[in-house]
Amino acid sequence: MSTLVLGTVALDTVKTPFGVRKNMLGGSAVHFAMSCRLFGRVNLAATIGEDFPDRYVDFLKRRGVVLTSLIREKGKTFSWQGAYTGDLNQAQTLSTKLGVLAEFMPTISPREAKIKNVFLANVDPEIQSHLLRQMRAPTLVGLDSMNYWIEHKQKALLKVLRKADIFVANDAEARSLSKEANLIQAARRLISLGPKMVLIKKGEHGVLFYGQGIIFLLPAFPTDKVIDPTGAGDTFAGGFMGVLARAKKITPGILKKAITYGTIAASFNVEGFGTEKTSRLTFRDLTARLKRFGKYVLI
Amino acid sequence: MSTLVLGTVALDTVKTPFGVRKNMLGGSAVHFAMSCRLFGRVNLAATIGEDFPDRYVDFLKRRGVVLTSLIREKGKTFSWQGAYTGDLNQAQTLSTKLGVLAEFMPTISPREAKIKNVFLANVDPEIQSHLLRQMRAPTLVGLDSMNYWIEHKQKALLKVLRKADIFVANDAEARSLSKEANLIQAARRLISLGPKMVLIKKGEHGVLFYGQGIIFLLPAFPTDKVIDPTGAGDTFAGGFMGVLARAKKITPGILKKAITYGTIAASFNVEGFGTEKTSRLTFRDLTARLKRFGKYVLI
Repeated sequence: MSTLVLGTVALDTVKTPFGVRKNMLGGSAVHFAMSCRLFGRVNLAATIGEDFPDRYVDFLKRRGVVLTSLIREKGKTFSWQGAYTGDLNQAQTLSTKLGVLAEFMPTISPREAKIKNVFLANVDPEIQSHLLRQMRAPTLVGLDSMNYWIEHKQKALLKVLRKADIFVANDAEARSLSKEANLIQAARRLISLGPKMVLIKKGEHGVLFYGQGIIFLLPAFPTDKVIDPTGAGDTFAGGFMGVLARAKKITPGILKKAITYGTIAASFNVEGFGTEKTSRLTFRDLTARLKRFGKYVLI
Repeated sequence: MSTLVLGTVALDTVKTPFGVRKNMLGGSAVHFAMSCRLFGRVNLAATIGEDFPDRYVDFLKRRGVVLTSLIREKGKTFSWQGAYTGDLNQAQTLSTKLGVLAEFMPTISPREAKIKNVFLANVDPEIQSHLLRQMRAPTLVGLDSMNYWIEHKQKALLKVLRKADIFVANDAEARSLSKEANLIQAARRLISLGPKMVLIKKGEHGVLFYGQGIIFLLPAFPTDKVIDPTGAGDTFAGGFMGVLARAKKITPGILKKAITYGTIAASFNVEGFGTEKTSRLTFRDLTARLKRFGKYVLI
Protein backbone atom coordinates (compact mmCIF):
# COMPACT_ATOMS: atom_id res chain seq x y z
CA MET A 1 0.00 0.00 0.00
CA SER A 2 1.13 3.53 -0.72
CA THR A 3 1.91 6.19 1.82
CA LEU A 4 1.41 9.88 1.11
CA VAL A 5 3.75 12.25 2.92
CA LEU A 6 3.14 15.96 3.19
CA GLY A 7 6.19 17.93 4.29
CA THR A 8 9.14 19.97 3.21
CA VAL A 9 11.70 19.49 0.51
CA ALA A 10 14.59 21.70 1.52
CA LEU A 11 18.10 22.85 0.82
CA ASP A 12 19.99 22.27 4.06
CA THR A 13 23.30 23.73 5.14
CA VAL A 14 24.57 21.82 8.12
CA LYS A 15 27.68 22.13 10.25
CA THR A 16 28.68 19.40 12.69
CA PRO A 17 32.02 18.52 14.33
CA PHE A 18 32.52 16.24 11.30
CA GLY A 19 32.26 18.86 8.58
CA VAL A 20 30.00 21.23 6.66
CA ARG A 21 27.62 20.51 3.81
CA LYS A 22 26.02 23.31 1.82
CA ASN A 23 22.62 23.21 0.11
CA MET A 24 22.18 19.48 0.60
CA LEU A 25 18.90 17.84 -0.30
CA GLY A 26 16.89 17.75 2.91
CA GLY A 27 13.46 18.41 4.41
CA SER A 28 11.01 16.30 6.37
CA ALA A 29 9.28 14.73 3.36
CA VAL A 30 12.62 13.73 1.82
CA HIS A 31 13.96 12.07 4.97
CA PHE A 32 10.60 10.34 5.48
CA ALA A 33 10.61 9.05 1.90
CA MET A 34 14.17 7.70 2.14
CA SER A 35 13.11 5.09 4.70
CA CYS A 36 9.43 4.62 3.80
CA ARG A 37 10.37 3.65 0.21
CA LEU A 38 12.02 0.48 1.55
CA PHE A 39 8.58 -0.82 2.58
CA GLY A 40 6.34 0.36 -0.25
CA ARG A 41 5.38 3.20 -2.55
CA VAL A 42 5.71 6.78 -1.30
CA ASN A 43 3.94 9.77 -2.78
CA LEU A 44 5.39 13.11 -1.82
CA ALA A 45 3.42 16.37 -1.52
CA ALA A 46 5.70 19.38 -1.20
CA THR A 47 6.86 22.55 -2.89
CA ILE A 48 10.20 23.60 -4.37
CA GLY A 49 11.48 26.85 -5.86
CA GLU A 50 13.11 27.73 -9.16
CA ASP A 51 16.56 27.23 -7.63
CA PHE A 52 15.93 23.57 -6.77
CA PRO A 53 18.48 21.49 -8.72
CA ASP A 54 17.06 19.07 -11.28
CA ARG A 55 19.58 16.49 -10.12
CA TYR A 56 17.79 16.37 -6.76
CA VAL A 57 14.49 15.72 -8.54
CA ASP A 58 16.16 12.90 -10.46
CA PHE A 59 17.70 11.62 -7.24
CA LEU A 60 14.23 11.23 -5.68
CA LYS A 61 12.73 9.71 -8.83
CA ARG A 62 15.49 7.14 -9.10
CA ARG A 63 14.62 6.01 -5.60
CA GLY A 64 11.02 5.39 -6.62
CA VAL A 65 9.46 8.39 -4.88
CA VAL A 66 6.29 9.49 -6.70
CA LEU A 67 6.56 13.22 -7.37
CA THR A 68 3.16 14.00 -8.92
CA SER A 69 2.52 16.53 -6.14
CA LEU A 70 5.99 18.00 -5.88
CA ILE A 71 5.15 21.45 -7.18
CA ARG A 72 7.73 23.94 -8.42
CA GLU A 73 6.73 27.55 -7.74
CA LYS A 74 8.24 30.95 -8.47
CA GLY A 75 10.68 31.86 -5.75
CA LYS A 76 13.29 30.10 -3.67
CA THR A 77 13.26 26.64 -2.15
CA PHE A 78 12.80 26.43 1.62
CA SER A 79 16.24 26.47 3.17
CA TRP A 80 17.55 25.70 6.63
CA GLN A 81 20.95 26.35 8.16
CA GLY A 82 21.89 24.64 11.36
CA ALA A 83 24.82 23.62 13.51
CA TYR A 84 25.43 20.84 16.00
CA THR A 85 28.09 20.75 18.69
CA GLY A 86 29.01 18.48 21.61
CA ASP A 87 26.80 15.41 21.83
CA LEU A 88 24.90 16.45 18.66
CA ASN A 89 21.58 16.08 20.42
CA GLN A 90 20.38 19.61 19.82
CA ALA A 91 20.47 21.55 16.55
CA GLN A 92 21.13 25.26 16.69
CA THR A 93 19.16 26.91 13.90
CA LEU A 94 21.23 29.62 12.24
CA SER A 95 18.74 30.61 9.57
CA THR A 96 15.38 29.54 8.17
CA LYS A 97 14.24 30.94 4.82
CA LEU A 98 10.69 29.90 4.00
CA GLY A 99 10.80 30.90 0.32
CA VAL A 100 8.01 29.13 -1.60
CA LEU A 101 6.90 27.38 1.61
CA ALA A 102 5.33 30.66 2.77
CA GLU A 103 2.56 30.38 0.16
CA PHE A 104 2.33 26.58 0.01
CA MET A 105 -1.17 25.07 -0.23
CA PRO A 106 -0.83 21.54 -1.59
CA THR A 107 -3.25 20.10 -4.11
CA ILE A 108 -2.95 16.38 -4.71
CA SER A 109 -4.16 14.31 -7.64
CA PRO A 110 -7.52 12.44 -7.50
CA ARG A 111 -5.53 9.21 -7.46
CA GLU A 112 -3.47 10.30 -4.47
CA ALA A 113 -6.62 11.35 -2.64
CA LYS A 114 -7.49 7.63 -2.41
CA ILE A 115 -4.31 6.71 -0.55
CA LYS A 116 -5.13 5.21 2.85
CA ASN A 117 -1.93 5.99 4.76
CA VAL A 118 -0.97 9.61 5.24
CA PHE A 119 1.85 11.25 7.13
CA LEU A 120 1.62 14.95 7.81
CA ALA A 121 5.21 15.93 8.57
CA ASN A 122 6.02 19.16 10.33
CA VAL A 123 4.54 22.12 8.42
CA ASP A 124 1.95 24.77 9.35
CA PRO A 125 -1.07 22.90 10.83
CA GLU A 126 -3.35 24.79 8.43
CA ILE A 127 -1.47 23.26 5.51
CA GLN A 128 -1.78 19.86 7.20
CA SER A 129 -5.57 20.32 7.54
CA HIS A 130 -5.80 21.54 3.96
CA LEU A 131 -4.17 18.36 2.71
CA LEU A 132 -6.14 16.07 5.00
CA ARG A 133 -9.43 17.50 3.72
CA GLN A 134 -8.50 16.29 0.23
CA MET A 135 -8.07 12.67 1.35
CA ARG A 136 -11.11 10.54 0.55
CA ALA A 137 -11.05 7.97 3.35
CA PRO A 138 -7.67 7.74 5.04
CA THR A 139 -7.39 4.84 7.46
CA LEU A 140 -4.15 5.85 9.16
CA VAL A 141 -3.08 9.45 9.65
CA GLY A 142 0.27 10.23 11.28
CA LEU A 143 0.95 13.76 12.42
CA ASP A 144 4.17 15.54 13.37
CA SER A 145 4.54 19.15 14.48
CA MET A 146 6.99 21.41 16.29
CA ASN A 147 7.24 23.85 19.17
CA TYR A 148 6.70 26.85 16.88
CA TRP A 149 3.16 25.68 15.98
CA ILE A 150 2.42 24.63 19.56
CA GLU A 151 3.19 28.20 20.61
CA HIS A 152 1.85 30.21 17.66
CA LYS A 153 -0.93 28.13 16.06
CA GLN A 154 -2.11 25.82 18.82
CA LYS A 155 -5.77 26.07 17.86
CA ALA A 156 -5.08 24.97 14.28
CA LEU A 157 -2.77 22.25 15.56
CA LEU A 158 -5.40 20.90 17.98
CA LYS A 159 -7.89 20.83 15.12
CA VAL A 160 -5.73 18.61 12.91
CA LEU A 161 -4.65 16.56 15.94
CA ARG A 162 -8.29 15.53 16.49
CA LYS A 163 -8.25 13.90 13.06
CA ALA A 164 -4.93 12.13 13.46
CA ASP A 165 -4.51 8.50 14.50
CA ILE A 166 -0.88 8.78 15.58
CA PHE A 167 0.77 11.86 16.98
CA VAL A 168 4.54 11.87 16.66
CA ALA A 169 6.38 14.40 18.83
CA ASN A 170 9.70 14.83 20.53
CA ASP A 171 9.77 14.88 24.33
CA ALA A 172 9.92 18.67 24.62
CA GLU A 173 6.97 19.08 22.25
CA ALA A 174 4.94 16.39 24.03
CA ARG A 175 5.56 18.09 27.37
CA SER A 176 4.80 21.53 26.00
CA LEU A 177 1.51 20.64 24.29
CA SER A 178 0.23 18.41 27.11
CA LYS A 179 1.47 20.65 29.93
CA GLU A 180 2.62 17.47 31.70
CA ALA A 181 6.24 16.95 32.75
CA ASN A 182 5.96 13.16 33.12
CA LEU A 183 6.04 11.53 29.68
CA ILE A 184 3.48 8.83 30.50
CA GLN A 185 1.07 11.46 31.76
CA ALA A 186 1.90 13.61 28.73
CA ALA A 187 1.07 10.74 26.38
CA ARG A 188 -2.21 10.08 28.21
CA ARG A 189 -3.18 13.75 27.96
CA LEU A 190 -2.32 13.88 24.25
CA ILE A 191 -4.51 10.81 23.63
CA SER A 192 -7.39 12.71 25.24
CA LEU A 193 -6.95 15.36 22.51
CA GLY A 194 -7.86 12.95 19.73
CA PRO A 195 -5.18 10.56 18.44
CA LYS A 196 -5.38 6.88 19.35
CA MET A 197 -1.61 6.58 19.61
CA VAL A 198 1.28 8.77 20.68
CA LEU A 199 4.91 8.24 19.76
CA ILE A 200 7.37 10.30 21.74
CA LYS A 201 10.84 10.60 20.18
CA LYS A 202 13.73 11.12 22.59
CA GLY A 203 16.64 11.39 20.14
CA GLU A 204 19.61 9.27 21.26
CA HIS A 205 17.43 7.90 24.09
CA GLY A 206 14.96 6.19 21.79
CA VAL A 207 11.17 6.29 21.76
CA LEU A 208 8.14 5.83 23.98
CA PHE A 209 4.91 4.56 22.40
CA TYR A 210 1.57 4.83 24.15
CA GLY A 211 -1.84 3.73 22.94
CA GLN A 212 -3.95 0.81 21.67
CA GLY A 213 -3.58 -0.78 25.09
CA ILE A 214 0.20 -0.88 25.05
CA ILE A 215 3.19 1.01 26.34
CA PHE A 216 6.38 0.28 24.45
CA LEU A 217 9.85 1.63 25.06
CA LEU A 218 12.76 1.19 22.70
CA PRO A 219 16.26 2.65 23.03
CA ALA A 220 17.94 4.10 19.98
CA PHE A 221 20.40 1.83 18.17
CA PRO A 222 23.77 2.50 19.84
CA THR A 223 25.79 3.81 16.93
CA ASP A 224 29.25 5.21 17.59
CA LYS A 225 29.25 7.31 14.41
CA VAL A 226 26.82 10.19 14.82
CA ILE A 227 27.76 12.52 11.95
CA ASP A 228 24.56 14.54 11.36
CA PRO A 229 21.26 13.83 13.12
CA THR A 230 19.20 16.12 10.85
CA GLY A 231 16.13 14.23 9.67
CA ALA A 232 16.48 11.30 12.09
CA GLY A 233 12.93 11.82 13.40
CA ASP A 234 11.46 11.88 9.89
CA THR A 235 13.52 8.86 8.87
CA PHE A 236 12.12 7.09 11.93
CA ALA A 237 8.57 8.09 10.96
CA GLY A 238 9.11 6.86 7.41
CA GLY A 239 10.14 3.40 8.55
CA PHE A 240 7.38 3.30 11.13
CA MET A 241 4.62 4.32 8.69
CA GLY A 242 6.10 2.07 6.01
CA VAL A 243 5.71 -1.06 8.14
CA LEU A 244 2.16 -0.07 9.11
CA ALA A 245 1.18 0.58 5.47
CA ARG A 246 2.19 -2.98 4.65
CA ALA A 247 0.25 -4.54 7.53
CA LYS A 248 -3.28 -5.86 7.12
CA LYS A 249 -4.19 -5.06 10.71
CA ILE A 250 -2.55 -2.90 13.34
CA THR A 251 -1.73 -5.21 16.24
CA PRO A 252 0.63 -4.64 19.19
CA GLY A 253 3.14 -6.91 17.42
CA ILE A 254 2.98 -4.86 14.20
CA LEU A 255 3.34 -1.61 16.15
CA LYS A 256 6.47 -2.91 17.89
CA LYS A 257 7.86 -4.06 14.56
CA ALA A 258 7.15 -0.64 13.02
CA ILE A 259 8.86 1.17 15.91
CA THR A 260 11.85 -1.15 15.67
CA TYR A 261 12.29 -0.68 11.92
CA GLY A 262 11.87 3.08 12.33
CA THR A 263 14.59 3.04 14.99
CA ILE A 264 16.98 1.09 12.77
CA ALA A 265 16.34 3.36 9.77
CA ALA A 266 17.00 6.45 11.92
CA SER A 267 20.31 4.97 13.10
CA PHE A 268 21.55 4.90 9.51
CA ASN A 269 20.37 8.46 8.94
CA VAL A 270 22.57 9.90 11.69
CA GLU A 271 25.67 8.13 10.36
CA GLY A 272 26.01 10.46 7.39
CA PHE A 273 25.21 14.00 6.29
CA GLY A 274 21.70 14.54 4.91
CA THR A 275 20.50 11.51 2.96
CA GLU A 276 24.04 10.20 2.31
CA LYS A 277 23.39 6.92 4.10
CA THR A 278 19.63 6.48 3.81
CA SER A 279 19.58 7.06 0.05
CA ARG A 280 21.77 3.97 -0.40
CA LEU A 281 20.01 1.88 2.20
CA THR A 282 18.49 -1.49 1.31
CA PHE A 283 15.96 -3.57 3.19
CA ARG A 284 18.74 -6.09 3.68
CA ASP A 285 20.83 -3.48 5.55
CA LEU A 286 17.89 -2.86 7.86
CA THR A 287 17.32 -6.50 8.72
CA ALA A 288 21.03 -7.13 9.29
CA ARG A 289 21.22 -4.28 11.79
CA LEU A 290 17.92 -5.33 13.34
CA LYS A 291 19.46 -8.67 14.19
CA ARG A 292 22.38 -7.00 15.99
CA PHE A 293 19.96 -4.64 17.74
CA GLY A 294 18.05 -7.57 19.20
CA LYS A 295 21.17 -8.61 21.11
CA TYR A 296 21.53 -5.13 22.56
CA VAL A 297 17.99 -4.69 23.85
CA LEU A 298 16.54 -8.09 24.70
CA ILE A 299 16.48 -8.87 28.42
CA MET B 1 27.13 -13.60 49.44
CA SER B 2 27.53 -10.27 51.20
CA THR B 3 28.07 -6.93 49.56
CA LEU B 4 29.98 -4.14 51.26
CA VAL B 5 28.94 -0.61 50.36
CA LEU B 6 31.04 2.44 51.14
CA GLY B 7 29.15 5.71 50.84
CA THR B 8 27.23 8.38 52.64
CA VAL B 9 24.52 8.23 55.27
CA ALA B 10 22.88 11.61 55.11
CA LEU B 11 20.13 13.85 56.32
CA ASP B 12 18.36 15.05 53.18
CA THR B 13 16.03 17.98 52.78
CA VAL B 14 14.26 17.71 49.46
CA LYS B 15 11.70 19.87 47.71
CA THR B 16 9.83 18.62 44.64
CA PRO B 17 6.53 19.70 43.05
CA PHE B 18 4.95 17.06 45.32
CA GLY B 19 6.09 18.46 48.66
CA VAL B 20 8.99 19.02 51.02
CA ARG B 21 10.69 16.59 53.41
CA LYS B 22 13.16 17.80 56.01
CA ASN B 23 16.11 15.81 57.38
CA MET B 24 15.00 12.55 55.83
CA LEU B 25 17.25 9.52 56.00
CA GLY B 26 19.27 9.55 52.78
CA GLY B 27 22.74 9.15 51.34
CA SER B 28 24.23 6.89 48.69
CA ALA B 29 24.97 3.94 51.01
CA VAL B 30 21.43 4.00 52.41
CA HIS B 31 19.73 4.01 49.01
CA PHE B 32 22.09 1.30 47.81
CA ALA B 33 21.33 -0.85 50.86
CA MET B 34 17.55 -0.51 50.48
CA SER B 35 17.61 -2.46 47.21
CA CYS B 36 20.71 -4.62 47.71
CA ARG B 37 19.23 -6.11 50.92
CA LEU B 38 16.51 -7.79 48.83
CA PHE B 39 19.16 -10.03 47.27
CA GLY B 40 21.52 -10.76 50.16
CA ARG B 41 23.41 -9.35 53.10
CA VAL B 42 24.66 -5.74 52.95
CA ASN B 43 27.40 -4.31 55.12
CA LEU B 44 27.52 -0.55 55.25
CA ALA B 45 30.67 1.55 55.77
CA ALA B 46 29.84 5.19 56.46
CA THR B 47 29.99 7.90 59.07
CA ILE B 48 27.29 9.77 60.99
CA GLY B 49 27.35 12.66 63.45
CA GLU B 50 26.04 13.18 66.95
CA ASP B 51 22.78 14.58 65.57
CA PHE B 52 21.91 11.40 63.65
CA PRO B 53 18.62 10.10 65.07
CA ASP B 54 18.75 6.68 66.74
CA ARG B 55 15.48 5.81 65.06
CA TYR B 56 17.26 5.93 61.69
CA VAL B 57 19.89 3.51 63.00
CA ASP B 58 17.09 1.20 64.12
CA PHE B 59 15.37 1.66 60.78
CA LEU B 60 18.46 0.34 58.97
CA LYS B 61 19.01 -2.50 61.44
CA ARG B 62 15.41 -3.67 61.14
CA ARG B 63 15.96 -3.99 57.40
CA GLY B 64 18.91 -6.30 57.97
CA VAL B 65 21.68 -3.85 57.09
CA VAL B 66 24.90 -4.72 58.93
CA LEU B 67 26.14 -1.58 60.67
CA THR B 68 29.47 -2.73 62.15
CA SER B 69 31.26 -0.01 60.18
CA LEU B 70 28.72 2.75 60.57
CA ILE B 71 30.83 5.02 62.74
CA ARG B 72 29.43 7.89 64.83
CA GLU B 73 31.86 10.79 65.14
CA LYS B 74 31.84 14.14 66.91
CA GLY B 75 30.15 16.71 64.70
CA LYS B 76 27.18 16.86 62.39
CA THR B 77 25.91 14.29 59.96
CA PHE B 78 26.47 15.01 56.27
CA SER B 79 23.44 16.91 54.99
CA TRP B 80 22.17 17.76 51.54
CA GLN B 81 19.43 20.15 50.50
CA GLY B 82 18.06 19.99 46.99
CA ALA B 83 15.12 20.92 44.84
CA TYR B 84 13.59 19.48 41.70
CA THR B 85 11.30 21.27 39.27
CA GLY B 86 9.71 20.53 35.89
CA ASP B 87 10.45 17.04 34.66
CA LEU B 88 12.43 16.23 37.87
CA ASN B 89 15.41 15.04 35.86
CA GLN B 90 17.91 17.44 37.37
CA ALA B 91 18.42 18.22 41.04
CA GLN B 92 19.36 21.74 42.01
CA THR B 93 21.66 21.56 45.04
CA LEU B 94 20.77 24.28 47.53
CA SER B 95 23.27 23.34 50.22
CA THR B 96 25.81 20.64 51.04
CA LYS B 97 27.20 20.43 54.56
CA LEU B 98 29.97 17.83 54.83
CA GLY B 99 30.04 17.66 58.66
CA VAL B 100 31.74 14.45 59.80
CA LEU B 101 32.24 13.40 56.17
CA ALA B 102 35.07 15.93 55.89
CA GLU B 103 37.31 13.79 58.13
CA PHE B 104 35.95 10.37 57.17
CA MET B 105 38.48 7.57 56.73
CA PRO B 106 36.66 4.26 57.04
CA THR B 107 38.10 1.29 58.89
CA ILE B 108 36.28 -1.97 58.44
CA SER B 109 36.34 -5.10 60.55
CA PRO B 110 38.62 -8.07 59.66
CA ARG B 111 35.51 -10.03 58.85
CA GLU B 112 34.25 -7.40 56.43
CA ALA B 113 37.66 -7.25 54.77
CA LYS B 114 36.94 -10.75 53.44
CA ILE B 115 33.79 -9.70 51.59
CA LYS B 116 34.12 -10.36 47.87
CA ASN B 117 31.65 -7.83 46.45
CA VAL B 118 32.30 -4.15 47.08
CA PHE B 119 30.52 -1.03 45.94
CA LEU B 120 32.31 2.27 46.32
CA ALA B 121 29.49 4.80 46.12
CA ASN B 122 30.19 8.44 45.40
CA VAL B 123 32.64 9.84 47.99
CA ASP B 124 36.14 11.34 47.69
CA PRO B 125 38.21 8.91 45.55
CA GLU B 126 40.91 8.92 48.24
CA ILE B 127 38.39 7.53 50.72
CA GLN B 128 37.39 4.94 48.10
CA SER B 129 41.04 3.89 47.67
CA HIS B 130 41.52 3.82 51.43
CA LEU B 131 38.66 1.36 51.82
CA LEU B 132 39.65 -0.75 48.85
CA ARG B 133 43.16 -1.23 50.26
CA GLN B 134 41.59 -2.91 53.31
CA MET B 135 39.79 -5.54 51.25
CA ARG B 136 41.62 -8.88 51.20
CA ALA B 137 40.67 -10.26 47.79
CA PRO B 138 37.61 -8.57 46.33
CA THR B 139 36.31 -10.28 43.20
CA LEU B 140 33.89 -7.59 42.07
CA VAL B 141 34.43 -3.89 42.70
CA GLY B 142 31.81 -1.38 41.58
CA LEU B 143 32.72 2.30 41.54
CA ASP B 144 30.58 5.43 41.35
CA SER B 145 31.80 9.02 41.35
CA MET B 146 30.59 12.49 40.43
CA ASN B 147 31.56 15.55 38.39
CA TYR B 148 33.14 17.24 41.39
CA TRP B 149 35.82 14.53 41.70
CA ILE B 150 36.29 14.36 37.92
CA GLU B 151 37.12 18.05 38.00
CA HIS B 152 38.97 18.39 41.29
CA LYS B 153 40.55 14.99 42.04
CA GLN B 154 40.84 13.32 38.70
CA LYS B 155 44.23 11.76 39.44
CA ALA B 156 42.93 10.06 42.59
CA LEU B 157 39.79 9.00 40.73
CA LEU B 158 41.77 7.46 37.86
CA LYS B 159 43.83 5.56 40.42
CA VAL B 160 40.82 3.89 42.04
CA LEU B 161 39.18 3.43 38.61
CA ARG B 162 42.10 1.20 37.57
CA LYS B 163 41.18 -1.17 40.38
CA ALA B 164 37.46 -1.24 39.70
CA ASP B 165 35.65 -3.91 37.71
CA ILE B 166 32.54 -1.87 36.98
CA PHE B 167 32.39 1.89 36.64
CA VAL B 168 28.94 3.34 37.17
CA ALA B 169 28.42 6.92 35.93
CA ASN B 170 25.68 9.12 34.64
CA ASP B 171 25.88 10.30 31.03
CA ALA B 172 27.32 13.72 31.86
CA GLU B 173 30.03 12.17 34.05
CA ALA B 174 30.89 9.53 31.45
CA ARG B 175 31.23 12.23 28.78
CA SER B 176 33.26 14.49 31.03
CA LEU B 177 35.77 11.88 32.20
CA SER B 178 36.19 10.24 28.79
CA LYS B 179 36.15 13.51 26.82
CA GLU B 180 33.94 11.73 24.28
CA ALA B 181 30.48 13.05 23.35
CA ASN B 182 29.20 9.79 21.90
CA LEU B 183 28.26 7.40 24.72
CA ILE B 184 29.52 4.25 23.01
CA GLN B 185 32.87 5.90 22.40
CA ALA B 186 32.81 7.24 25.97
CA ALA B 187 32.24 3.72 27.33
CA ARG B 188 35.06 2.34 25.19
CA ARG B 189 37.44 5.05 26.42
CA LEU B 190 36.48 4.45 30.06
CA ILE B 191 37.17 0.72 29.63
CA SER B 192 40.67 1.64 28.47
CA LEU B 193 41.18 3.33 31.85
CA GLY B 194 40.84 0.08 33.77
CA PRO B 195 37.36 -1.27 34.48
CA LYS B 196 36.07 -4.27 32.56
CA MET B 197 32.54 -2.92 32.47
CA VAL B 198 30.87 0.48 32.25
CA LEU B 199 27.30 1.23 33.21
CA ILE B 200 26.04 4.62 32.05
CA LYS B 201 22.90 5.83 33.84
CA LYS B 202 20.64 8.16 31.87
CA GLY B 203 17.95 8.89 34.46
CA GLU B 204 14.45 8.60 32.98
CA HIS B 205 16.04 7.32 29.75
CA GLY B 206 17.45 4.16 31.31
CA VAL B 207 20.93 2.70 31.13
CA LEU B 208 23.63 1.69 28.68
CA PHE B 209 25.96 -1.18 29.63
CA TYR B 210 29.22 -1.81 27.82
CA GLY B 211 31.79 -4.52 28.45
CA GLN B 212 32.44 -8.28 28.67
CA GLY B 213 31.66 -8.51 24.98
CA ILE B 214 28.19 -7.07 25.23
CA ILE B 215 26.32 -3.84 24.73
CA PHE B 216 23.00 -3.71 26.53
CA LEU B 217 20.43 -0.93 26.56
CA LEU B 218 17.47 -0.81 28.86
CA PRO B 219 14.90 2.01 29.18
CA ALA B 220 13.77 3.07 32.63
CA PHE B 221 10.50 1.59 33.87
CA PRO B 222 7.81 4.04 32.67
CA THR B 223 6.33 5.16 35.95
CA ASP B 224 3.79 7.97 35.93
CA LYS B 225 4.44 8.89 39.58
CA VAL B 226 7.86 10.50 39.85
CA ILE B 227 7.79 12.07 43.33
CA ASP B 228 11.47 12.34 44.27
CA PRO B 229 14.31 10.87 42.17
CA THR B 230 16.98 11.35 44.88
CA GLY B 231 18.93 8.12 45.26
CA ALA B 232 17.56 6.43 42.14
CA GLY B 233 21.07 5.80 40.80
CA ASP B 234 22.22 4.24 44.08
CA THR B 235 19.03 2.17 44.33
CA PHE B 236 19.78 0.96 40.82
CA ALA B 237 23.36 0.08 41.80
CA GLY B 238 22.13 -1.79 44.88
CA GLY B 239 19.84 -4.04 42.87
CA PHE B 240 22.49 -4.50 40.20
CA MET B 241 25.25 -5.45 42.64
CA GLY B 242 22.82 -7.57 44.67
CA VAL B 243 22.03 -9.82 41.71
CA LEU B 244 25.73 -10.14 40.84
CA ALA B 245 26.66 -11.03 44.43
CA ARG B 246 24.22 -13.92 44.25
CA ALA B 247 25.53 -15.24 40.94
CA LYS B 248 28.20 -17.94 40.73
CA LYS B 249 29.56 -16.60 37.46
CA ILE B 250 29.11 -13.30 35.67
CA THR B 251 27.60 -14.14 32.29
CA PRO B 252 25.87 -11.81 29.78
CA GLY B 253 22.56 -13.26 30.98
CA ILE B 254 23.34 -12.48 34.63
CA LEU B 255 24.46 -8.96 33.74
CA LYS B 256 21.20 -8.30 31.89
CA LYS B 257 19.25 -9.70 34.84
CA ALA B 258 21.19 -7.47 37.24
CA ILE B 259 20.57 -4.37 35.11
CA THR B 260 16.88 -5.20 34.86
CA TYR B 261 16.43 -5.70 38.62
CA GLY B 262 18.37 -2.51 39.27
CA THR B 263 16.06 -0.65 36.89
CA ILE B 264 12.95 -2.01 38.60
CA ALA B 265 14.27 -1.17 42.08
CA ALA B 266 15.07 2.39 40.94
CA SER B 267 11.53 2.82 39.60
CA PHE B 268 10.15 2.22 43.10
CA ASN B 269 12.65 4.67 44.59
CA VAL B 270 11.41 7.60 42.49
CA GLU B 271 7.77 6.97 43.46
CA GLY B 272 8.23 8.27 47.00
CA PHE B 273 10.36 10.69 49.01
CA GLY B 274 13.68 9.31 50.25
CA THR B 275 13.40 5.64 51.16
CA GLU B 276 9.60 5.79 51.65
CA LYS B 277 8.96 3.18 48.95
CA THR B 278 12.18 1.18 48.86
CA SER B 279 12.23 0.57 52.62
CA ARG B 280 8.93 -1.33 52.33
CA LEU B 281 9.85 -3.12 49.14
CA THR B 282 9.81 -6.91 48.91
CA PHE B 283 11.37 -9.22 46.36
CA ARG B 284 7.83 -10.12 45.34
CA ASP B 285 7.12 -6.46 44.43
CA LEU B 286 10.20 -6.47 42.22
CA THR B 287 9.27 -9.61 40.32
CA ALA B 288 5.66 -8.45 39.82
CA ARG B 289 6.82 -5.20 38.27
CA LEU B 290 9.49 -7.01 36.28
CA LYS B 291 6.76 -9.03 34.60
CA ARG B 292 4.92 -5.87 33.54
CA PHE B 293 8.19 -4.31 32.40
CA GLY B 294 8.83 -7.22 30.03
CA LYS B 295 5.69 -6.29 28.10
CA TYR B 296 6.89 -2.70 27.72
CA VAL B 297 10.36 -3.41 26.41
CA LEU B 298 10.34 -6.70 24.52
CA ILE B 299 10.30 -6.31 20.75
